[in-house]
Amino acid sequence: MTTLVLYAVLLAAPADAKKPKPAPNAEDTAVILLGQALTSDGAMDKLEELCDDIGHRLSGSPQLQEAVKWGEAKMAAEGLDASVEDVMVPGWIRGKEIAVLLDPIERPLNILTLGRSVGTPDRGITAEVVVVDDWDHLASLGDEVKGKIVLYDVPFIDYGTNVQYRGDGANRASKLGALAVMVRSVTPTSLNTPHTGAMWYADDIETKIPAVAVTVEESAMMRRLSERGTTLRVHLELGAETIEDQPSHNVVGEIKGREKPEEIVLMGCHLDSWDVGQGAQDDGAGCTAIMEAGRLIAALDTPPRRTVRVVLFTNEENGLKGGKAYAKAHPDENFVAVMEMDTGAGQPYGWRVDQRREDDEAAKKLAEDTIAWLKPIQDLLAPIGANQLKAAGSGADIGPLVKQGALGLGLWMDTTGYWPIHHTRADTIEKIDPMNLRRNVATLAVTTWMLAEKADLPPK
Amino acid sequence: MTTLVLYAVLLAAPADAKKPKPAPNAEDTAVILLGQALTSDGAMDKLEELCDDIGHRLSGSPQLQEAVKWGEAKMAAEGLDASVEDVMVPGWIRGKEIAVLLDPIERPLNILTLGRSVGTPDRGITAEVVVVDDWDHLASLGDEVKGKIVLYDVPFIDYGTNVQYRGDGANRASKLGALAVMVRSVTPTSLNTPHTGAMWYADDIETKIPAVAVTVEESAMMRRLSERGTTLRVHLELGAETIEDQPSHNVVGEIKGREKPEEIVLMGCHLDSWDVGQGAQDDGAGCTAIMEAGRLIAALDTPPRRTVRVVLFTNEENGLKGGKAYAKAHPDENFVAVMEMDTGAGQPYGWRVDQRREDDEAAKKLAEDTIAWLKPIQDLLAPIGANQLKAAGSGADIGPLVKQGALGLGLWMDTTGYWPIHHTRADTIEKIDPMNLRRNVATLAVTTWMLAEKADLPPK
Repeated sequence: MTTLVLYAVLLAAPADAKKPKPAPNAEDTAVILLGQALTSDGAMDKLEELCDDIGHRLSGSPQLQEAVKWGEAKMAAEGLDASVEDVMVPGWIRGKEIAVLLDPIERPLNILTLGRSVGTPDRGITAEVVVVDDWDHLASLGDEVKGKIVLYDVPFIDYGTNVQYRGDGANRASKLGALAVMVRSVTPTSLNTPHTGAMWYADDIETKIPAVAVTVEESAMMRRLSERGTTLRVHLELGAETIEDQPSHNVVGEIKGREKPEEIVLMGCHLDSWDVGQGAQDDGAGCTAIMEAGRLIAALDTPPRRTVRVVLFTNEENGLKGGKAYAKAHPDENFVAVMEMDTGAGQPYGWRVDQRREDDEAAKKLAEDTIAWLKPIQDLLAPIGANQLKAAGSGADIGPLVKQGALGLGLWMDTTGYWPIHHTRADTIEKIDPMNLRRNVATLAVTTWMLAEKADLPPK
Repeated sequence: MTTLVLYAVLLAAPADAKKPKPAPNAEDTAVILLGQALTSDGAMDKLEELCDDIGHRLSGSPQLQEAVKWGEAKMAAEGLDASVEDVMVPGWIRGKEIAVLLDPIERPLNILTLGRSVGTPDRGITAEVVVVDDWDHLASLGDEVKGKIVLYDVPFIDYGTNVQYRGDGANRASKLGALAVMVRSVTPTSLNTPHTGAMWYADDIETKIPAVAVTVEESAMMRRLSERGTTLRVHLELGAETIEDQPSHNVVGEIKGREKPEEIVLMGCHLDSWDVGQGAQDDGAGCTAIMEAGRLIAALDTPPRRTVRVVLFTNEENGLKGGKAYAKAHPDENFVAVMEMDTGAGQPYGWRVDQRREDDEAAKKLAEDTIAWLKPIQDLLAPIGANQLKAAGSGADIGPLVKQGALGLGLWMDTTGYWPIHHTRADTIEKIDPMNLRRNVATLAVTTWMLAEKADLPPK
């Protein structure tokens, strides 16, 4: 090329700039997003603001509403169309928590009342403790638990198994006439660390009895003392109470699709947390990772073909009102996929693919087809090991949308560090590995972008 | 042999029984002790009584004196000559502990006052916080810490390095005019778990200022907030106070030597603990392991050639008065070796061999010779991997005896599980692996027996 020709080309350039930009090559853009996500601290910076400046965010608390405002303002500042949707959420207050082992030795017990539990009368409940191994053991005891406090000392098997005692323990004990239940914290690891979490009351029980979590250590101590043939007595004074429902919001950030705005790829998390710790892993990390993935996509020169929506759901922990309200308010929208990150911020493996149909076999087949369809997208994430796919449940908040027929994708990651932390005072930021948080952002950004940009759609 | 001859031999047997028993073969007996230790739950059973029935045992507390009585009665019941020796120990009361981060956000802080710390005035101390990296950083700040609270946020390197800030932090900050110090808990692992421990006041400071441990999580949070340029303010209200010295006791159980009662092999531990958790690893396990080793040796048909002494020292944690008083009361006794178990109950490796002489080179040479001399004894413990020996410090309580010239042996074990637990509310029994506790008893019993029975003595 002569100097004169080059000059002509340079002169011509301004005219080109006025033409609409060509649609990007989807894979090239995905690689750019991957690189940006792996070198940005955007999620961690947002997480510091959410956890250090606002802190934990129980449904009904002023902190949750502070987080709602923060999330909306943040997404607006980062280039998304931000809005909120009204949701009423349960009001529950922990109140005072006093628990003392009185006999055979006097010891304070380190407890956390379970979410939604009723309190005790002001003077408390003082009663003998019966140590229970499992449901069968409880059933075999029958009337023997009447007028007593049931301690479910169930060694940790897995979250799904053990959490049943937390959720349903009060109901089964109440039916046998127990006055209260204590549940061994659902965790394999403890430094005398109580884990809270939700419990529920069945419609068919006569009396709602209080439920608390005790630590692994103190549960084991009560078992040892009981096995030595001594009678255990415990005093519980709990101020927990359910108050009227409180106004809250789902927070939505949107990047409108350039060609098919009515087709939506949704990334979700839950903004609320339990009222202990900072809600960093559960689920601050999920929220700030999807916000960061949204920011990266919003910053592209060209928006994706379809709409990308970032939703910070309210009230996952003790009601799921946010997820339910969202599905109810958006029954007819065309969701290409709905995604959720809600198991901490460990090394990402890929996605749990969640397809539900009335016919189980059809759902299974559809999940298999979806996995095959997603594979080329996930291959883009092979460099960070996040290219695996398996059929499994996706996420609590997006569950109602998945039930309505949407493809659910749950961010699948190493959760070794998650279970011992979540629902405790130890769910704080410094447990989060910044490099793994970036890898999660990368996984979210690449998959979301490709789902929103690829010419074809996943199988239905 | 004909039936008639056999009959004659049998008839002769009763006469034989009247003769004094022959001295045992030392190695054969060691193998019997090894097998007994590895199949007995004696130490764990005693540990349950000590930790569950009595609980933690701070110097000056009624619980420690309960433990003294229990230890004496237990050893007497298990065949040792039991007695106690008077020791006055420091009186220190934790009192109320309130700590709140006020600015830039209001948060309660999960603290433990350090042992021996003074309290605050009734109304508390409210001041700005300066986050300090290390001694050099503190020195470079100089007058800037005047009127403030110093936070030593020193990431965990190793116990010896980090514990300096806990011990000496108040002195160095006081000299610069600080009002109080907070020290990041000395641990690599935390579930928002504060670690207490001893601090001390130098003679040359003008003002004794209070010192508390904060958790790794909350120390890291304050650093993050500080690095974002905000001013931190904390309110501390501490009821800690030193009261008059209290009477306590070292508890001694003895098995008098059959030939050389004046030559003594001593096993030690400390019976006191901090006033949180159960003092299970620190040092309940050490006490019940040496008691069990003593029981096994006392139960032998023939006592060992030399005297075996089991000593439960008082007040290791905040004064070392028990160890010092014992050395002062027994200056001229002939200790063949003094041993201690005080780092939990992990898999035993063998012994840290501690020889001290004025001349360092002489001490080093003596330690090497001692290791060579001990090797055939330790070979008996090869089946459980506790046959290793190295030159290193032995134990705090036996330290004063070692300084007086005794051979010190510290039970050397895996301490991975020990450091995150000791001095916390999580130092409870169920952390202790019963099989490893048995292996520690075996190591104590075999080495003690051989030292007390072998014809020759370790090099001097």
